[in-house]
Amino acid sequence: MASKKNLPVTSEVTPQKKRSATSYDVAMLAGVSQSAVSRCFKPGASVSPETRARVLKATKELDYIPNALARSLITRRSNLVAVLISNLTNLYYPEVLSELSKQFVSKGMRILLFTVPHESDIDQTITQIWQYQVDGVIAATRLSLEHVTEFERHGIPLVLYNRTLAEKSVDAVVCDQIEGARILVSRLAAAGHQRFAIISGPTDSVVGQERTRGARERVLELGLREPQVVMGHYDYQSGVNGLRQLMKNRASAPDAIICGNDIMAIGCIDAARHEFRIDVPKMLSVAGFDGVEPSTWMSHNLTTLRQPVQKMAQAAAEMLLSLIDNHTSSPEKRVFSAQFIEGGTSRLDHPVPPATKKEQK
Amino acid sequence: MASKKNLPVTSEVTPQKKRSATSYDVAMLAGVSQSAVSRCFKPGASVSPETRARVLKATKELDYIPNALARSLITRRSNLVAVLISNLTNLYYPEVLSELSKQFVSKGMRILLFTVPHESDIDQTITQIWQYQVDGVIAATRLSLEHVTEFERHGIPLVLYNRTLAEKSVDAVVCDQIEGARILVSRLAAAGHQRFAIISGPTDSVVGQERTRGARERVLELGLREPQVVMGHYDYQSGVNGLRQLMKNRASAPDAIICGNDIMAIGCIDAARHEFRIDVPKMLSVAGFDGVEPSTWMSHNLTTLRQPVQKMAQAAAEMLLSLIDNHTSSPEKRVFSAQFIEGGTSRLDHPVPPATKKEQK
Repeated sequence: MASKKNLPVTSEVTPQKKRSATSYDVAMLAGVSQSAVSRCFKPGASVSPETRARVLKATKELDYIPNALARSLITRRSNLVAVLISNLTNLYYPEVLSELSKQFVSKGMRILLFTVPHESDIDQTITQIWQYQVDGVIAATRLSLEHVTEFERHGIPLVLYNRTLAEKSVDAVVCDQIEGARILVSRLAAAGHQRFAIISGPTDSVVGQERTRGARERVLELGLREPQVVMGHYDYQSGVNGLRQLMKNRASAPDAIICGNDIMAIGCIDAARHEFRIDVPKMLSVAGFDGVEPSTWMSHNLTTLRQPVQKMAQAAAEMLLSLIDNHTSSPEKRVFSAQFIEGGTSRLDHPVPPATKKEQK
Repeated sequence: MASKKNLPVTSEVTPQKKRSATSYDVAMLAGVSQSAVSRCFKPGASVSPETRARVLKATKELDYIPNALARSLITRRSNLVAVLISNLTNLYYPEVLSELSKQFVSKGMRILLFTVPHESDIDQTITQIWQYQVDGVIAATRLSLEHVTEFERHGIPLVLYNRTLAEKSVDAVVCDQIEGARILVSRLAAAGHQRFAIISGPTDSVVGQERTRGARERVLELGLREPQVVMGHYDYQSGVNGLRQLMKNRASAPDAIICGNDIMAIGCIDAARHEFRIDVPKMLSVAGFDGVEPSTWMSHNLTTLRQPVQKMAQAAAEMLLSLIDNHTSSPEKRVFSAQFIEGGTSRLDHPVPPATKKEQK
C-alpha cells in the first residue's frame, strides 16, 4: 500500500498521503468503544441504531476503511474463496466463473482466482492456496486424493465442480456425463447410425474420460462396432485434426462422431464441410458436449448436451457457504442432468419408413 | 478457517483438527529467531544457507504455513492484484484475464477478481476494493474521474486496460481503436464500398464508442454518405438484430458493415446468410474487432482487427508492478496497434479492372 510505505509518525496530513484512519480514531470521534466500531462492520453483529449512526458518521468524516485482511485475522474469515480453473480459454469455464462470481459476490465474498494451464499442473498452485487463508475452495480442475486430503487436514472446505474422486467421498456438484453420453449414443443409434467414432478430451480430464467411457459403453451395449477413439485437447484444432485422422481410411469412416466438447465438435464440422466437402448432418452426424454459447449460433446450431451451468454454479456456491458455516456435514453430491439439444448437426430421425420405425431409448 | 475456529489452548493435536504451527514454533524448533523465520519466507530477504536449511526442516516437520494475509499487515504488501472486468461472457475478456493471470502468477502475485455486469455498475464494486488492501488494480472497465481520483487518494496504483480518461493523465495500456477503425474503412473504401453502416458497442463502452467514432470520421473524410449506426450490446443477438434493422429499407441497405466486436460481426453474418440469403462477402462485407478465437474458425474466417492481447496484458502487468515498487513515476500510456486480418468476410480487392486499379490507403 502506497500510503503506508511512508507511514507518518506524526498526525500531519498532506492531501495525497494522509495516514489512514484506524478503528481507534473512529471510536474516539464517535465516543464509543473500539469493539462497537468493529461490530458495525461485521456482517450480522448486533449494535444499537444510535451507536451505528454515530460510528457511520465518524467513519465518513475520517474516511475510515475497515481493513478486511486485518479483520480476517480476528474473525478467522477472509471472505475469500479460491476458485481453481484449469483452462480459461476453454469457453466453458468463463461461463462457470462468471456464474460463480455472481453467486459469491451476492454473499459478500470475493473470488481469488487460480488458473492452472493444464489439469496436471495443479501441484505448484495448490501449495499457494494455503497462504491466502481462504474460507473455502471451488475446484473445477482435477485433484488427487492427496490434494483432497491436504485440504481436509488444513480444515479448508472444498467443493469439486464437475469432478469427483473414486477413492473418497467428497462434496461435489456434477453433471452426469455418463448419462449424457449414453443418451446421445442412444438417440443417434435409434436414427440408424452404426459407425461411431469419438474425438475425446485429454487423458487428464476426468469429465472428458467419463464422456468417452459412457459413449463407448453404450455403443458396445447396442451391439455396434467398437468406436474408433481419437485423442483431442478440447480446442478447435483438435476437432479439425480428429476428423482428418478419422477420414484416413474412407472405407471405415464413421457416420456419427461424438466430440468431448463443443469446440472440438465445431472444429470437426468445419473440417468436414470446408476440407472434405462432407454434408453435415446428411452424410455425417456430429455432436458435442457443454452447450457453450457459440454452439447456439446459427452457423453452428450444434447437437449437444447442455450443462445447466447457472444451476450448477449456484449449487456449488450454496454448498461451499454451508460448509464454511458448518464443517460437520457429511459429504454430498449434487448431480445434474444435461439437457439434450437436438440442433442441426446430427440426423436424428430414423432413415427407414415411419411404418417400421421403432423407438429405442 | 475451520482449524482455527476451535483453536485449542493446549498443544494436543488430533489428526483432523490440529492447531496450526506459528512462526514462533518454527523458530523454537529450528533454534533461530522469529525474524530469521520470517526472512526465510520473504522474497529477496537475506538469510544464511544454514539458517534457511534449519528453518525449512522445522517448517516441514511442523507443517507450518506462512500466513500471507498476516504477513501483508507487516510488509504492507498483500501480493493481491484486483482485476476489474465488465463482462466475462464477452469472449474477449477471458483471453485478457487468462493472460493477466499468467503474468501475475509468474511474479508471485494473485488475482482478486471483480466482475461488473455492466460497465456502468462499477460504483458498488469499487467501494469493496479498498477493503482488500490490494497492491494494485487493473481496470478493464470504465472508470470515472472520481473513481480514478479515489484510487490516487488511497495510494493504490492503477493501470487502465483499453481505457483512458479524457480529463486526467492515467497509466494505461491501450489498443489504438481509432487507428484500427480508420484502417478498416480505408481498406473497404479502396475496394469500392460506398454504403457503410456500423453496429456499434453500447454507449457505456469507451472502446466501442472509439471504434464507432473512428469509422464514422473516416467514412465522412472519404466523402462517402453518413453511415447508419445501430446500437448493440457486444453479444451475438445484437449482431443479428443489427442486420435486421439495417435491412428494413432494402433500397438504402449497406454494402459494408463494421461491427463493434467480433461476436456481433458473427451474429450479423449469420443473419445475413441464414435469414436474408445474402452472400457474404460477395454482396455484403462485414468486419469485426478484437480477433477472438472463434473469429479464426473456418466457419467464420472473419475480417477483423486483432488486438495483441498477450503483449497488452504483459505490458499492463509490468506497468502495474513497477508502479507498486515506485509510486513516483509519471503517467504513461502504452499504445498498441491492432493487426488487420483480411479473413474472408469482406471483399478487399477493387471491383474495377486491374489496369485502372489504384492503391488507396
